[in-house]
Amino acid sequence: MTLATLLTLGRGRELITPILRQMVDRLDPSTRLVVSYHLGWSDQHGAPVSRSGGKAVRPGLALLGAEASGADPRIALPGAVAVELVHNFSLVHDDLMDRDAKRRHRPTVWALWGDATAVLAGDAMLSLAHEVLADCHSPHAHSPHAEAAATVIAIATRELIRGQAQDTAFEKRSDVTLDECLDMVRGKTGALMSASAVIGAVLAGAAASLTDALAAYGAHLGLAFQLVDDLLGIWGQPEVTGKPVYSDLRSRKKTLPLTWTVENGGAAGRQLAAWLADETRAAAATDDELGAVARLIERGGGRAWASEEARRYVALAGEAVAHACIAEGPASELRALARYLVDREA
Amino acid sequence: MTLATLLTLGRGRELITPILRQMVDRLDPSTRLVVSYHLGWSDQHGAPVSRSGGKAVRPGLALLGAEASGADPRIALPGAVAVELVHNFSLVHDDLMDRDAKRRHRPTVWALWGDATAVLAGDAMLSLAHEVLADCHSPHAHSPHAEAAATVIAIATRELIRGQAQDTAFEKRSDVTLDECLDMVRGKTGALMSASAVIGAVLAGAAASLTDALAAYGAHLGLAFQLVDDLLGIWGQPEVTGKPVYSDLRSRKKTLPLTWTVENGGAAGRQLAAWLADETRAAAATDDELGAVARLIERGGGRAWASEEARRYVALAGEAVAHACIAEGPASELRALARYLVDREA
Repeated sequence: MTLATLLTLGRGRELITPILRQMVDRLDPSTRLVVSYHLGWSDQHGAPVSRSGGKAVRPGLALLGAEASGADPRIALPGAVAVELVHNFSLVHDDLMDRDAKRRHRPTVWALWGDATAVLAGDAMLSLAHEVLADCHSPHAHSPHAEAAATVIAIATRELIRGQAQDTAFEKRSDVTLDECLDMVRGKTGALMSASAVIGAVLAGAAASLTDALAAYGAHLGLAFQLVDDLLGIWGQPEVTGKPVYSDLRSRKKTLPLTWTVENGGAAGRQLAAWLADETRAAAATDDELGAVARLIERGGGRAWASEEARRYVALAGEAVAHACIAEGPASELRALARYLVDREA
Repeated sequence: MTLATLLTLGRGRELITPILRQMVDRLDPSTRLVVSYHLGWSDQHGAPVSRSGGKAVRPGLALLGAEASGADPRIALPGAVAVELVHNFSLVHDDLMDRDAKRRHRPTVWALWGDATAVLAGDAMLSLAHEVLADCHSPHAHSPHAEAAATVIAIATRELIRGQAQDTAFEKRSDVTLDECLDMVRGKTGALMSASAVIGAVLAGAAASLTDALAAYGAHLGLAFQLVDDLLGIWGQPEVTGKPVYSDLRSRKKTLPLTWTVENGGAAGRQLAAWLADETRAAAATDDELGAVARLIERGGGRAWASEEARRYVALAGEAVAHACIAEGPASELRALARYLVDREA
């Protein structure tokens, strides 16, 4: 990570945390405990812990978006908090739906407290995202464009839901095309990344030419991010990613490198397709067998393709920024953030 | 139901349905199908059906709230749609959490499509509730007070979550007090009823004296509504209520008549407490045994108490309206609606 990106993300986290804590404090005690645990603020009994609650990429983007419009980044704060809340709402609900038992090296909410608690904790964060935007009496800077920002959040949430619905449906199919998969990723990952890049500028009242450019930047970034996530889900170090090894392969998730290999990987792709079609075998696969599946994807070219494709989307994100009228400071931070997201290891 | 109440509710449904349909149409096809089914617009394959999607009490209240402020009821429309969406979001998620397999005579969403689909459909409706309020480009009347209305929705949602978290926790306990139970009902039922009564006036920019009165009216109405719901859950006709007989007793739900009887029902209350404490017996109870438990509640006085208490809350709701400066038309409709809600059979 470059120093600039480190500062961008650190500043984002530092600025949003007090507001995020104020919002979470409004919840009833039991839901507050669960949300505090999920956000990495406490252990499961409520004792404070100091650990990272994630990279805070989305709040960082929201602040940069306001700066890109020449505004004080603080105008973006309710938006930065909102995108972080929507992101975490979707993590808690997705973990439940996907039955993922680990996140950030810890048991997930449903795994610790059960399904009902995970449903409620996610609901609470989605609702708080809108509450922070609507909050006229808040001490932080208030924008006259809060309704437009709420619309940005609502549309991104609809897209998240679309993507997750597709993702869930895809797990039961073995004939998912790369195009379908890309469409799913645009909803599941691209939409909120795009909303994060745009919401600060929306709160600052920026012109459509700028918000369009930031939306495109964020959408490209989302694709790049997901490609890297998919790569880490197969070849990442579990001790770094915090997720079990090969979990995406075990659940036959239709990730981008896998789906590309099935379509374009020649003999390796055909072998991969046959493995995917044999449901009972995939479900019972050992780590060794999943390792062999990972090697099939590598041999078929899916790993190299995903890597190159991630870099191509980062370049497209950079172009979107270059063509907009953005001061060099925020523009270079936006480019550096995009590069960081594809070079990361977790 | 009086003709006036019939007209109030019918008008509410008629006015909100086109906007509700526009909002639901924005969802991806699979989530749209599920939401349309839940709202009673289609069967599970998407074929249109004509059936009631519920009483539409909350939209009716929202419109009356605007009229109570002397405004055109159409100013309340986004709020009326929002409260109906929040209500239905909570039904879909609560059915999942409570594992209730039937609602309105049909299988519930999770029972038909599984947990993930129910989570997503609920999420979608909560998000749409905020989207309709934030929607500046909508063709329906737009209020400059949409952010205040969004805050009303967000606070009610937090309260709903608080109430449902308590309700879920109470099912595992046998020592729940009547005070705890009343506090849960204020969150789970009172808050959204109160928000529904107030949101139209908020959108109309009414003075705090009126919104306070409407909030109190709605909170009292919510208590009355829940008392009647609890009575119907024990003594209602399953063919009218659309829910299985004794389902609340079977799941040892801490309803108001039950909790009151444990505290105040003398010998019958002690027998009831003993039955509740024996978890394995309660879980395996036959319909005959549950019938005996219902008779214990009746013998201990819980049924009569809940009935009288419902009427007392309706009177309190009426007083809240009487003390506010509301024209006789909407004031008498608010009173009639409250009476209807305690006289209903489903």
